[in-house]
Amino acid sequence: MNRVLVTGPSGFIGTHCLRRLATEHCEIHAANRSGRGEPGAGVTWHAADLRDADHVLSLVAKIQPTHLLHGAWVATPRLYGHSPENFAWLRSTIALAAAFGRHGGARFVGIGSSAEYDPGERPCVEDATPIRPATIYGKCKAASWLAVQAAAQHHGFSAAWGRLFMPYGPGDPPQRLIPSVLAALRAGQPVQTSHGTQQRDFIYAPDAADLLVRLLLSQEAGAFNIGTGRATKVRSVVEYLASRCRRPDLPQFGAISLTPGEPDILVADMSKVGKRLAWSPQNDLHQGLDRVIDCA
Amino acid sequence: MNRVLVTGPSGFIGTHCLRRLATEHCEIHAANRSGRGEPGAGVTWHAADLRDADHVLSLVAKIQPTHLLHGAWVATPRLYGHSPENFAWLRSTIALAAAFGRHGGARFVGIGSSAEYDPGERPCVEDATPIRPATIYGKCKAASWLAVQAAAQHHGFSAAWGRLFMPYGPGDPPQRLIPSVLAALRAGQPVQTSHGTQQRDFIYAPDAADLLVRLLLSQEAGAFNIGTGRATKVRSVVEYLASRCRRPDLPQFGAISLTPGEPDILVADMSKVGKRLAWSPQNDLHQGLDRVIDCA
Repeated sequence: MNRVLVTGPSGFIGTHCLRRLATEHCEIHAANRSGRGEPGAGVTWHAADLRDADHVLSLVAKIQPTHLLHGAWVATPRLYGHSPENFAWLRSTIALAAAFGRHGGARFVGIGSSAEYDPGERPCVEDATPIRPATIYGKCKAASWLAVQAAAQHHGFSAAWGRLFMPYGPGDPPQRLIPSVLAALRAGQPVQTSHGTQQRDFIYAPDAADLLVRLLLSQEAGAFNIGTGRATKVRSVVEYLASRCRRPDLPQFGAISLTPGEPDILVADMSKVGKRLAWSPQNDLHQGLDRVIDCA
Repeated sequence: MNRVLVTGPSGFIGTHCLRRLATEHCEIHAANRSGRGEPGAGVTWHAADLRDADHVLSLVAKIQPTHLLHGAWVATPRLYGHSPENFAWLRSTIALAAAFGRHGGARFVGIGSSAEYDPGERPCVEDATPIRPATIYGKCKAASWLAVQAAAQHHGFSAAWGRLFMPYGPGDPPQRLIPSVLAALRAGQPVQTSHGTQQRDFIYAPDAADLLVRLLLSQEAGAFNIGTGRATKVRSVVEYLASRCRRPDLPQFGAISLTPGEPDILVADMSKVGKRLAWSPQNDLHQGLDRVIDCA
């Protein structure tokens, strides 16, 4: 039976990956700093600070995972792009890949990011769009993927990298776009956003987790976009939420300015995923947003 | 006055860089495992094992270099491409860039490699050719450059990366192509080579060092090819050496097979270097080979 280790299991995407993995026949291990997480689902929890190379080594030696889904990374909304913590996670990823290989691991999937691509290019095609990250986060993620590929080549394990676009859904941190817009709408407060004409590839988090777990349980090597292939204006999302909450009067577009360097369009090309994994998302954007509104 | 730290100062290229730096008005520090090197030239030598993060920290804290020319890396002929030592040098580079930034360093130049490029592409253009390294060496070099860029962005130093093509010249390790061919020719032994139709961008090592030092003392950020822009068949080099040694009878082309995955052509596009650094090589291939023959 596959022995899967999940890092970052308490994060937004990690939580969904853990739930999705519970539907597969495998032994699931999850490691985070506290060693505690969502009960049930047959997960064995481990306490480890993965930024410490000794913790990485002893964790991997103890579990001897056949599969590793590596999602642990700094993700603090607004701050992660330029946090010095990115360097610690780059080092951690190098250590994890080495320990995984040394202990006979077979299949490594890391969670990368659309931030690895040249922000001026669209759509983002895994093996064609230049890797030219604008942020420290994107640079450290891209460096990690190269290091993982080197470790895979040295140790002979299979490796893939899921470049995540814009996830949303249950568990989305309150400071991020959709939860903060919904909170303002519900409180009857003005929703101050940027002009909102920038387009993003929004993916419902359980769909992203489904794709990541399918990738993990496949043998496909290489980088794969974790998106939907559809670009939607941020403005349209805010307008849809406002109309569903019956407060179309509250959004104030252009009230705040866009972070400099934010690309106009960031959208995944999904043909490689379609071809190699025969995958498409279960929820379109309105279905996903409806679920978020209904659940909150 | 600029305080320059050179890592890998006793390697093939590092030795030439140190000599070239001696012609500049700057304080030169060199670090290697023994703390000893070529005497003269006003270099201060330091003993440090840069694969040890503590050594990196104390070295950089002591010297507080304004400029760093980072050449230290595993370079054992034939073995470096897939050596696990590549991972130690990737970690070392990440640690060096962090320590350099923390101690107020201003200008970082690392020695990268043509092995970072997709081996199927030609010529190699710094900002256009895909980074798709075939070897563990190339992957770890490419990951290092991303990590250096992230550190430069975080600490605010200026960074460049010199992707070295095929250097040759005085000090070339005896196992490498030109010294081994010359040794066989002089011993009157058959020169067993591959078919030799593969083309490489041969650069005379003092010219490569000149370009690296100019890059170091400039403020140009980004990746720069360290080559000449000319592709030459390996066969032509062997034939030239054989004719100059008056032993055209000795080469046996096709006697050994090419390492699988060796590209047919690996040549630098030098337009970015020409435009930004107004540089061209001082020695063409025959001039460089003549110097090697005359000096050996």
